[in-house]
Amino acid sequence: MKDRPLILVTNDDGITAPGLRALIEVMNELGDVFVVAPDSPQSGTGHAITSNATIYCTAITIDEGDQIEYSSSGTPVDCVKLAVNEILNRKPDICVSGINHGSNSSINVIYSGTMSAAVEAGIEGIPAIGFSLLDYDWEANFEATKKYVKKITQKVLDHGLPEGVVLNVNFPKLKEKDIKGIRICRQAKAYWEEDFDKRTNPNGKQYYWLSGKFVNKDKGQDTDEWALANGYVSLVPVMFDLTAHHAIQKLNSLGFNEK
Amino acid sequence: MKDRPLILVTNDDGITAPGLRALIEVMNELGDVFVVAPDSPQSGTGHAITSNATIYCTAITIDEGDQIEYSSSGTPVDCVKLAVNEILNRKPDICVSGINHGSNSSINVIYSGTMSAAVEAGIEGIPAIGFSLLDYDWEANFEATKKYVKKITQKVLDHGLPEGVVLNVNFPKLKEKDIKGIRICRQAKAYWEEDFDKRTNPNGKQYYWLSGKFVNKDKGQDTDEWALANGYVSLVPVMFDLTAHHAIQKLNSLGFNEK
Repeated sequence: MKDRPLILVTNDDGITAPGLRALIEVMNELGDVFVVAPDSPQSGTGHAITSNATIYCTAITIDEGDQIEYSSSGTPVDCVKLAVNEILNRKPDICVSGINHGSNSSINVIYSGTMSAAVEAGIEGIPAIGFSLLDYDWEANFEATKKYVKKITQKVLDHGLPEGVVLNVNFPKLKEKDIKGIRICRQAKAYWEEDFDKRTNPNGKQYYWLSGKFVNKDKGQDTDEWALANGYVSLVPVMFDLTAHHAIQKLNSLGFNEK
Repeated sequence: MKDRPLILVTNDDGITAPGLRALIEVMNELGDVFVVAPDSPQSGTGHAITSNATIYCTAITIDEGDQIEYSSSGTPVDCVKLAVNEILNRKPDICVSGINHGSNSSINVIYSGTMSAAVEAGIEGIPAIGFSLLDYDWEANFEATKKYVKKITQKVLDHGLPEGVVLNVNFPKLKEKDIKGIRICRQAKAYWEEDFDKRTNPNGKQYYWLSGKFVNKDKGQDTDEWALANGYVSLVPVMFDLTAHHAIQKLNSLGFNEK
């Protein structure tokens, strides 16, 4: 028992999501698996925490695997905080989040509950990886990702990660034989162009649906978008020191303290 | 009209929050003010977006000021997206968010709806600033912040900001005469130690309240925590390219593509 790593697993699509079930299956081969995941889908939840409401967290059995599982009413970040600070009696050796149904490449990292859970684990000093597949379908096929999920997780278990860094791993929607390998990338400078869908409810009140299209004007071949478009698994090191260190000198020259 | 800047104002404490009202008052001196803010408090909402639910957004009058205001059921990030992409007919010259009731220094930047709104504006290419006062009280006194809020906003209107950078400004809870000035800082490496409060509901089911204490082991004198503890306004340049560029070489050396 002692030699097997303790692996914390979570996601943002909810505890019954096929992507999470695939991730648990792979992790059961690598260590003792402990799951705390949201009881319902929480995509786009970002780094939200529940500070003004109660949080439920209940032991649950979903399938026949060896893992221990809890389902929580909290956000993905709440799930990590609960697992690490309340439920587990020792610090996990690694935290893996996902496998997300849909891309968390480029700027999506910032909106993603899956990646925010990984970042929260990183803040708590736990090596952490978020996994996502470029397929939003609930019935998405995760088979081709499993070999890579296992390899990347084992590598991090063996070597750890640089301080203050977690991994954002995205998989192209390809068969395993068509995936060319893994590329270490930077986050592409891409963004969403919103296009709100304005409607009127049965009581005559206007409301909106958020929609939009993803725009990538970053032509660099070292980006996650390039890697994914060219058949590679993208791996971006992500940090939570958000300081733009390169901007400090420039800002100091602007004279904020002048009269 | 044309010479006056268009200023987008939002927050995460909700449209009636005294901190927002103080910010609007200052902004009315600097330009044409357009407010889209949440209809209820959304602290700790992070960079959440509303992708699976409807969003309401309604014109509203709260006080006698010159500003135009909308109240929205969305998150702070939704508010910025709605304002920029749906309601306004031109891009704002600046977006200011806050003044938050409570600190958004150090790691709090990542949980903060106020700062996430500013970051979202930054992603949309708008110079943006989040303001926060180290006083969680709803009745907090924002008088001492106003001179600085005006000066910093004017400076950004005059000079812009480096690409991909927004500002995280925090104010110590001090009288104006006791504030020593502004310091450009880095985000302190501090974090929260959670301490969940476990209770039982009237039906016998266990639930939790998230609580915790803030721990700062970063002794640097160039951090926001140091500045605030020593009577300064802290100003941290924040970026949304989360790539840990310094870690790419190290990761490349780990051999992720080995058999």
